[in-house]
Amino acid sequence: MSFWKIFFKNTSDMNWQTNIELENTENILLVKHLENEGQYLDIYFSIDDDINLYDLEKLCDSVGWVRRPLKKVKMAIDHSFLTICLFYKSCQKKNLIGFARVTSDNSFNATIWDVVIHPKFQGKGLGKVLMDQVIKQLRYSDISTITLFADPQVVSFYRNLGFITDPDGVKGMFWYPL
Amino acid sequence: MSFWKIFFKNTSDMNWQTNIELENTENILLVKHLENEGQYLDIYFSIDDDINLYDLEKLCDSVGWVRRPLKKVKMAIDHSFLTICLFYKSCQKKNLIGFARVTSDNSFNATIWDVVIHPKFQGKGLGKVLMDQVIKQLRYSDISTITLFADPQVVSFYRNLGFITDPDGVKGMFWYPL
Repeated sequence: MSFWKIFFKNTSDMNWQTNIELENTENILLVKHLENEGQYLDIYFSIDDDINLYDLEKLCDSVGWVRRPLKKVKMAIDHSFLTICLFYKSCQKKNLIGFARVTSDNSFNATIWDVVIHPKFQGKGLGKVLMDQVIKQLRYSDISTITLFADPQVVSFYRNLGFITDPDGVKGMFWYPL
Repeated sequence: MSFWKIFFKNTSDMNWQTNIELENTENILLVKHLENEGQYLDIYFSIDDDINLYDLEKLCDSVGWVRRPLKKVKMAIDHSFLTICLFYKSCQKKNLIGFARVTSDNSFNATIWDVVIHPKFQGKGLGKVLMDQVIKQLRYSDISTITLFADPQVVSFYRNLGFITDPDGVKGMFWYPL
């Protein structure tokens, strides 16, 4: 219990009614009664890495990402330090609406990859909820350098969360096969 | 044997006399007879993660890096996807002169951290040797997005190795605790 107590301390400054409570160590009620298309939904948060890969593929399809071999996706999830899912439940089924994962050396550095919120749930602050939880989890693990690579259209989103570009002239660089 | 044969295929375009040969699977003769301060030394390469932490600390001291708790350094190495050392031998002792390590999801993405060459051995192309081996190893593992964060003074070094900054406006971003 103590882990989650620490983890969720001061967890959110959102305007919605929030209600962080333990269902079990995997599924946490994060946002109570988020309004979406006239419906009120409870949004849950999970760090369980037992993810339905087809649900994840569907989520990635919804934002137009290029499909990747599921075997490689599974390998990537299995070797990520942290995977976070946002979902709501209907008829006892989990509906995946958000995802992020993190690689790390478990000590100093972490890099966040594959941050995605389903288009129907964008613009409701869930991206911030997701990222706040990622950062809290990494800080709980005493990891102090948190990095990511942001597409131009989301640089300002991450800036608002406290991420900075090119600190002291440090540049993110990429190498791709020719 | 096949792994190393693939790994070292076309391994170097250096001007030095190179002689890649197997001593065992951990210590590979990489550069034969590198001239250093009037001495000729054989430079070895290792991906063994059983690193003497005091030797590594000494190497990091030599380039003026802030000291880090050895326990956290060990944790970081243990959870790195790849650690690479460059060293020469004298009196059966390994002398660590280069180091790099990589975090990865073992599938799509990798991030290179802590690249260091001892000042006495800088300007001899060993940084390129080290990075070439890092890239070859990652490509062998079919990892296609290789990233790093470069201090301003080494951006051009990495550019010469084929790394690019801000491709399509993608920005490397950082979050640090306040």
